[in-house]
Amino acid sequence: MFQKILQKKNKRIIGLMSGTSMDGIDTVLLNVSGSASSTRFEIVQFDMLQYTPQVRSWLLDAGRPGKTDAAGLCRVNAFLGEMFARAAQHICRKAKFPIEEVDLIGSHGQTLIHLPEMVRMAGIDVRSTLQIGDPAIIAERTGVTTVANFRNRDLAAGGQGAPLMAFVDFLVFRSRARGRIILNLGGIANLTALPPNCAPESVLAFDTGPGNCLIDQLVASMTGNKEQFDFRGRYASRGTCQQSLLDHLLDHPFLSKPPPKSCDRTSFSISWVEEAVRSTGVENGFDTLATLCRFTACSVRRACEQFLFPAQSYEELIVSGGGTKNEILMKELAEQLSKLDIKVSDEYGLPADAKEAVGFALLANEALHGHSNHLPAATGARHSAILGMFLPGRLVPE
Amino acid sequence: MFQKILQKKNKRIIGLMSGTSMDGIDTVLLNVSGSASSTRFEIVQFDMLQYTPQVRSWLLDAGRPGKTDAAGLCRVNAFLGEMFARAAQHICRKAKFPIEEVDLIGSHGQTLIHLPEMVRMAGIDVRSTLQIGDPAIIAERTGVTTVANFRNRDLAAGGQGAPLMAFVDFLVFRSRARGRIILNLGGIANLTALPPNCAPESVLAFDTGPGNCLIDQLVASMTGNKEQFDFRGRYASRGTCQQSLLDHLLDHPFLSKPPPKSCDRTSFSISWVEEAVRSTGVENGFDTLATLCRFTACSVRRACEQFLFPAQSYEELIVSGGGTKNEILMKELAEQLSKLDIKVSDEYGLPADAKEAVGFALLANEALHGHSNHLPAATGARHSAILGMFLPGRLVPE
Repeated sequence: MFQKILQKKNKRIIGLMSGTSMDGIDTVLLNVSGSASSTRFEIVQFDMLQYTPQVRSWLLDAGRPGKTDAAGLCRVNAFLGEMFARAAQHICRKAKFPIEEVDLIGSHGQTLIHLPEMVRMAGIDVRSTLQIGDPAIIAERTGVTTVANFRNRDLAAGGQGAPLMAFVDFLVFRSRARGRIILNLGGIANLTALPPNCAPESVLAFDTGPGNCLIDQLVASMTGNKEQFDFRGRYASRGTCQQSLLDHLLDHPFLSKPPPKSCDRTSFSISWVEEAVRSTGVENGFDTLATLCRFTACSVRRACEQFLFPAQSYEELIVSGGGTKNEILMKELAEQLSKLDIKVSDEYGLPADAKEAVGFALLANEALHGHSNHLPAATGARHSAILGMFLPGRLVPE
Repeated sequence: MFQKILQKKNKRIIGLMSGTSMDGIDTVLLNVSGSASSTRFEIVQFDMLQYTPQVRSWLLDAGRPGKTDAAGLCRVNAFLGEMFARAAQHICRKAKFPIEEVDLIGSHGQTLIHLPEMVRMAGIDVRSTLQIGDPAIIAERTGVTTVANFRNRDLAAGGQGAPLMAFVDFLVFRSRARGRIILNLGGIANLTALPPNCAPESVLAFDTGPGNCLIDQLVASMTGNKEQFDFRGRYASRGTCQQSLLDHLLDHPFLSKPPPKSCDRTSFSISWVEEAVRSTGVENGFDTLATLCRFTACSVRRACEQFLFPAQSYEELIVSGGGTKNEILMKELAEQLSKLDIKVSDEYGLPADAKEAVGFALLANEALHGHSNHLPAATGARHSAILGMFLPGRLVPE
């Protein structure tokens, strides 16, 4: 039943993504031709549907220990499926494009829980991850074939279930001539290293540490929850980096751990920062913000120096994610990595905001073509697999 | 990527099912040819992998209010995926058939929560269901393409997400000449009414009330959890049906509610029986068991008389499910429905025990062929859809 979509030379694909910051759904409508190394795409429309505080608190609670039981999760999974479906419908209206002519949806869903560490249950080793946003509801409401929930399969194949964007970086950014480092500044910062003319096996990708998550939480706490992030870095710009605090933060053991590695918001919690602030006697919130910006930049530099530069040559650093809007963070990056040509992914037809949504649209396209859509070298999976669950769109009479 | 499977004239399909009683995984290996009305199948092997008390208690707790949070569910979802994968591997070993040559798996999963009633969340009407047993793990461990989690899509299309077996009854049992009622005596009893030469739209299917769930719970309580069901009805055979208790039970409003209707173990709880026992002064547990057997039979008779017999003619009652092993229950059925020719589904090549596992194998086969695999007339869905999520098996190099 998926043959009709495959036979089309040009496909319209929607990508749907709700990230660890749980602030809303990024949606993108793409024109896509080809697949694998012949993939070409163009963004028709991008949109971000922001969650209301009520919805955000449901999602946050759903992932918190002891907060939400099976019935609550069952409901919020369906509710979020309805939200994703509306996001897909909305972007079609915005683009004045009939949703009946959309060929495919790729939906990441919302990660609630990610437990790549092995636990033993009744004699069986178990590693697990939980994405919500029921794809059956997305496929039913939109009538569009949907590929969703990519992480489970990578985990099942022995991988960390992350980073998934490394494959997209490989698809979009690899270059015969230039070594490129692709950096995503989301809640957590992660990079993909693409040596010149690289094969899938030689791509390195890992989390470098916090991106914006600590900055966001500090701004929320400083403004009594009125602001959720440091708009253009204006608060950080009022402070000065405090070396003692920076040194303390840079002692975090994650930074020197060799890849493959991944972290989450619990590895770098705001209480860890607060304790560091107390113990180093920093009194000014703006100074802490300025220090956090340099900390993010330094953790990226260290990752490059320790794990990338010794082995390969790189010329470009291509940055995406919400952090690209923080001018202080970008300035710090430029200072720490002055040898690299720093660009924002917008310059490659891939706006920083839209990158992950584009990525899941492209992962869905690969899956539908029967191609592997992850990089075992990056995730640690034992072999290549096709990630994602396929949900047929509307029933086509024979 | 599913084309290669579709091109095969004969397919080997595994069906996996864990029912509301949460006692284990029913697994079947089938030879299947054709699809839709040309479907022919033969059972190669059937098996039941019983859960240990520890696993069963995890599953029961996972569905209980306030008992298990997102992290716990995430783990048990993956754990059960591993169990299902092992069940599939085990049946292949038992049948001495290489799993590499199995074409398809249909997995129902384990229902933890089923909430077909509408709730309003942030202005959106939400209906939801939750099946666990991660199909990404099943597909990865077995290497076999897997179709799983059928209920969500029916619910999304406006249906009750049940009964799904009605479609299988239609596929397997419809007859040009004879009107047939297919009765499944699981925890809950449900029937599918197939008038002679019926079209999909004229199939009626609904729950009639408890099947074995009350009997099982009472036996467990009478034996201090040593026995989980009334083996061949031997305890019921020691008692006598008590009319006052029977009348009390038959007053349950669910029985006279017109179809489509479905119920679960909370609609007919053991505490409801205990209260009826107290108020009618029945003192003997064996008498209560005997009364429960007649109650099940009477609720089936009432359903037939009220909703089936007035409109169509039926000659056969074909019974499946664990309840067929309870001789008292079967005797009561024969007495209450003496006009019908009563058979056990075994006589049609479909052993009572294996029916649901066979059913999900056949639902997966229909899904893969791009055919609708539910009966909107039975579930209440607004239109036909393809139920299930597709997980590709091992990656096939091009």
